[in-house]
Amino acid sequence: MPHSVAVFGAAGFTGALAAKLLHAHPEFELRALTARSDIGRRLDDLYPRHRVPLVLEELELDRHAEVEAAVVAYPHGAAAPLVKALRERGVRVVDLSADFRLRDPRVYEAWYREHQAPELLEEAVYGLPERYRDQIRGADLVANPGCYPTAALLALAPLAREGLIADVVIDAKSGVSGAGRAATEKTHFVAADENVSAYGVAGHRHTPEIEQELASLGAELKITFTPHLLPLDQGELVSCYATCDASLDSVDLDELYRDAYADEPFVELAAAPPGVRDVRETNFCRISVHLDERTGRAIVFAAIDNLWKGAASQAIQNLNLMFGLRESEGIL
Amino acid sequence: MPHSVAVFGAAGFTGALAAKLLHAHPEFELRALTARSDIGRRLDDLYPRHRVPLVLEELELDRHAEVEAAVVAYPHGAAAPLVKALRERGVRVVDLSADFRLRDPRVYEAWYREHQAPELLEEAVYGLPERYRDQIRGADLVANPGCYPTAALLALAPLAREGLIADVVIDAKSGVSGAGRAATEKTHFVAADENVSAYGVAGHRHTPEIEQELASLGAELKITFTPHLLPLDQGELVSCYATCDASLDSVDLDELYRDAYADEPFVELAAAPPGVRDVRETNFCRISVHLDERTGRAIVFAAIDNLWKGAASQAIQNLNLMFGLRESEGIL
Amino acid sequence: MPHSVAVFGAAGFTGALAAKLLHAHPEFELRALTARSDIGRRLDDLYPRHRVPLVLEELELDRHAEVEAAVVAYPHGAAAPLVKALRERGVRVVDLSADFRLRDPRVYEAWYREHQAPELLEEAVYGLPERYRDQIRGADLVANPGCYPTAALLALAPLAREGLIADVVIDAKSGVSGAGRAATEKTHFVAADENVSAYGVAGHRHTPEIEQELASLGAELKITFTPHLLPLDQGELVSCYATCDASLDSVDLDELYRDAYADEPFVELAAAPPGVRDVRETNFCRISVHLDERTGRAIVFAAIDNLWKGAASQAIQNLNLMFGLRESEGIL
Amino acid sequence: MPHSVAVFGAAGFTGALAAKLLHAHPEFELRALTARSDIGRRLDDLYPRHRVPLVLEELELDRHAEVEAAVVAYPHGAAAPLVKALRERGVRVVDLSADFRLRDPRVYEAWYREHQAPELLEEAVYGLPERYRDQIRGADLVANPGCYPTAALLALAPLAREGLIADVVIDAKSGVSGAGRAATEKTHFVAADENVSAYGVAGHRHTPEIEQELASLGAELKITFTPHLLPLDQGELVSCYATCDASLDSVDLDELYRDAYADEPFVELAAAPPGVRDVRETNFCRISVHLDERTGRAIVFAAIDNLWKGAASQAIQNLNLMFGLRESEGIL
Repeated sequence: MPHSVAVFGAAGFTGALAAKLLHAHPEFELRALTARSDIGRRLDDLYPRHRVPLVLEELELDRHAEVEAAVVAYPHGAAAPLVKALRERGVRVVDLSADFRLRDPRVYEAWYREHQAPELLEEAVYGLPERYRDQIRGADLVANPGCYPTAALLALAPLAREGLIADVVIDAKSGVSGAGRAATEKTHFVAADENVSAYGVAGHRHTPEIEQELASLGAELKITFTPHLLPLDQGELVSCYATCDASLDSVDLDELYRDAYADEPFVELAAAPPGVRDVRETNFCRISVHLDERTGRAIVFAAIDNLWKGAASQAIQNLNLMFGLRESEGIL
Repeated sequence: MPHSVAVFGAAGFTGALAAKLLHAHPEFELRALTARSDIGRRLDDLYPRHRVPLVLEELELDRHAEVEAAVVAYPHGAAAPLVKALRERGVRVVDLSADFRLRDPRVYEAWYREHQAPELLEEAVYGLPERYRDQIRGADLVANPGCYPTAALLALAPLAREGLIADVVIDAKSGVSGAGRAATEKTHFVAADENVSAYGVAGHRHTPEIEQELASLGAELKITFTPHLLPLDQGELVSCYATCDASLDSVDLDELYRDAYADEPFVELAAAPPGVRDVRETNFCRISVHLDERTGRAIVFAAIDNLWKGAASQAIQNLNLMFGLRESEGIL
Repeated sequence: MPHSVAVFGAAGFTGALAAKLLHAHPEFELRALTARSDIGRRLDDLYPRHRVPLVLEELELDRHAEVEAAVVAYPHGAAAPLVKALRERGVRVVDLSADFRLRDPRVYEAWYREHQAPELLEEAVYGLPERYRDQIRGADLVANPGCYPTAALLALAPLAREGLIADVVIDAKSGVSGAGRAATEKTHFVAADENVSAYGVAGHRHTPEIEQELASLGAELKITFTPHLLPLDQGELVSCYATCDASLDSVDLDELYRDAYADEPFVELAAAPPGVRDVRETNFCRISVHLDERTGRAIVFAAIDNLWKGAASQAIQNLNLMFGLRESEGIL
Repeated sequence: MPHSVAVFGAAGFTGALAAKLLHAHPEFELRALTARSDIGRRLDDLYPRHRVPLVLEELELDRHAEVEAAVVAYPHGAAAPLVKALRERGVRVVDLSADFRLRDPRVYEAWYREHQAPELLEEAVYGLPERYRDQIRGADLVANPGCYPTAALLALAPLAREGLIADVVIDAKSGVSGAGRAATEKTHFVAADENVSAYGVAGHRHTPEIEQELASLGAELKITFTPHLLPLDQGELVSCYATCDASLDSVDLDELYRDAYADEPFVELAAAPPGVRDVRETNFCRISVHLDERTGRAIVFAAIDNLWKGAASQAIQNLNLMFGLRESEGIL
């Protein structure tokens, strides 16, 4: 019998996509969609291509919490109280916000704001299956990673784990869907089309998330992380420049990555630099690693779909693990 | 009386644009266009929007060299012999190829091939006006810089000149016109649209050009340079990550750049990261500089139009200087 | 047990997509891919996102014809001899070319060339399931419709069948993938980007196909059909302007379409004009119908994905019918 | 001495572009910019690429009306009172809104709202120079045409004038800048990218404007006009399908258009269907005319840049005429 599930915050891009994936998922039954705007509209009116014939409802916790699982797609800060309420009612949660990604509430407060539910931080598992698969299996609260950290950590983990990185620059590129559904000066077609520019320079909030997880692998370092906005809708590429142990050669590097990802269902290694088109609308992360012999730097590229592996389909991957299902069910 | 000029290799994107700019230029008279393909077609048939009603002709040196000035837009390697022949006939040349950019023929041979006219290297001036304005004024042979070096050098020169850089990573992004007019698997709309990927990783031939010019400013270092292909037609952004002297603060950095470019007609400083849209179809280079205080890195962005400041309009800027005209004539 | 199938001509966009859909199809087993270029390359090298780990082979008929079913994705003219050879060996065929779409070989010859296998025309069924579902079920040779006819006929059939059309203009818009995989002046990113223009004016070869099928519904008329190339990869919109019976009102029109498509699994009716985004990477055709009361014209829009419902997924829909499977198997 | 001019409503796309063109115009001196949003921002902050270093000011009529000429870029309805006030102060006006385009106030009211200054309708001249050049020369109030009417009328005028049209369908395609600067669900990059759809079906307000001007040429008819939104920023193509006099052949048609536009500086005739790229950022209208011999229809394509010839540069063309300047001054 399928597990009952609801999506909270289904009017945005990632919540709506999670709804689509769950609606078509053989092992989940999508019971309800809530939203904070567009109440009363059907999701297939708002997102015709998702073909989910459910209505967006205003949150009524008592009613909407009568499910086994929840995907929460609320903005940072707004998510924590809802997650708390859901957990109190015994609902297992995958949270797409940043609220439970940073283990240290002081770091959260430095980059975001005061934490609304610090008591839940301990039970929260960082939902990168390639890193925390076993913990996710037993978790009741999974903090789905940010899109950039997903790609960056999959790109750098093999090096970090072996203690091979001294220094990292991450130059990231994302499609406009990463900026969310709000119509703004930045997301206007005429602003983004035929354009590219950096944003969040030296201060993007995915920085501490990447640093936390690199540190957990043994690589304690400060990184420079710079995202750029590209004229495409979905897709994200991180180009990572890591000063490496000088003894490393190109063959070692290839082997390191092959070993690290041999059994991963959603990580692909490629000889040529990946394009975001290669992973569009999939849960795959496609990685290629190169050695710049002149400078001794490893250059690692990782491409994902920011709405899929960077958010909604990774949430389903996490739900699959939490409920003991086949990890790729409904997302392959 | 206007100076007579011809464009050699006018069927490609940069040659055709140089033709357009010269056709409309009040101080030059565009006498002839040669090409190696599309002979007999009118340029306004091939490029309607340039509105140049001249026919592409097969090269007849004796006839076509009867001009005061030439813009040569031949591929690397093919340019040198033509430039030599033109110089022997006394024609003043701006060469858009790489053939005369690298002062050391051994470096040229390591990255390209055997040099076809090394005897001209000495007289060639590297055509970045913001760096070599005075030498260009007296030059008969100007090697127009590559598009990436133009942006990267304008971004990094102020730091390099002051001896403030220890280490540089350049992550560059270019529109598809940078790949030239040839119809290939890479330039097919369906390959480039909704995509982004790196190319020429750890081996792009603009690398030694950037290193040569940084060294000429006192910064002898090996750089990591990685270009990416973006789904847009014209425009180029370089994101430069430079490990800096630790004593530098944000105010110093701003002042350094303001001083360096106070009098430059085509360099704009901006507080916000520039977009390529800001400089589309102009000869401007728009720069913003930031300090990542957590890591001590300077992050410098420079945006140009790869076909304009990165090629054709910079060629006109150089011609203006060579012929004692107003530097911005015909390109502002 | 799954039915064995091969794709002939799998290097192009539509053949490769058919391969992808069949590779993932639970009731077919994809045995082989042949191609006329790129022999020896793996399909997942050529099209990483399709993730089909088979090699493109040169055609060896004896070996490759040992399958129950074939999808032929050859160019017009080249398809007929191969289809004939496959039929002689008892293989059931869906042909993506135009070779078996036009029932009258003289019409074929007027718009294409001499027909290479006119003896097969009688057994060929026009593969528009919404029109010929029953015949397709028993067919051994299905001529998959052209992309524009698919959309145009679904848009106009309800009116044509009722004898309500006097006159038709079809203004069609297609993404660049419709021009095929060949790298040409037209498919170069820089030519198509930020552009739109008509092509094949007053002479596109989908015209007689649309006229044949409108006539088969009782609407004998000459149409004006004009396709345009748009800066997007996949997607096709037809805007049909039909002078209608003056007695028709808006309510009749809606009812007519609702009745016509009530039970169709892949035709969606919408109140608002459909966008190609609504049907991207699906087998759906989304239609909206409007009455211009000032002029008495019905305006009907139909959006499809030209590579899916306009080609490859419709081929699977036809295969499903031919083999008695669920019509939507593998394409929903 | 240059003529003083102000732009009222310079924060939107068309007003800002008019400001840019006037700022660079040798015969006008741009004195002031007013706006209804973004008061206090500099235009080169809002639109860096226009490079106009003036501040957007709140309207103070007494001060801002101290100019010889005004370009008004207010929304429909809001423009009329401002135009009236400016005319009362003797300012010569080019109005970009629809408020003075329709000669009959009842038609205006049927399609828009009650007219705010009907007494000015008589003095207003419809600002299509190719049609009303002489009247514009003496005018004090010019109603700049809508973008679609500009293209459609230039496409159809030669036929209409000769009494050759019986019936017209216009299928129009526009880039997103045509929807204006407001950030909305429709103008969000993710909504428009990789998409195309119709809007304003059977009710777009440019319809009566086209009909009025066709009637003024002798072609009294009701047209079907349907605009579509395309994934590009600037550019507009109209595809006109006109049932013609049956005696017309292809040669007549070509001659008719050649005669009509022989002396027009901004109308280009082309053999091949024009692309909007051909006229991007120019004041040109590029037209090609075809005869569909099977149906007896003339098919006429006209491409313009919707912000240039469709709005701002045509406004300058009108100002040039009004002030006795060279018609192409500042826009060629």
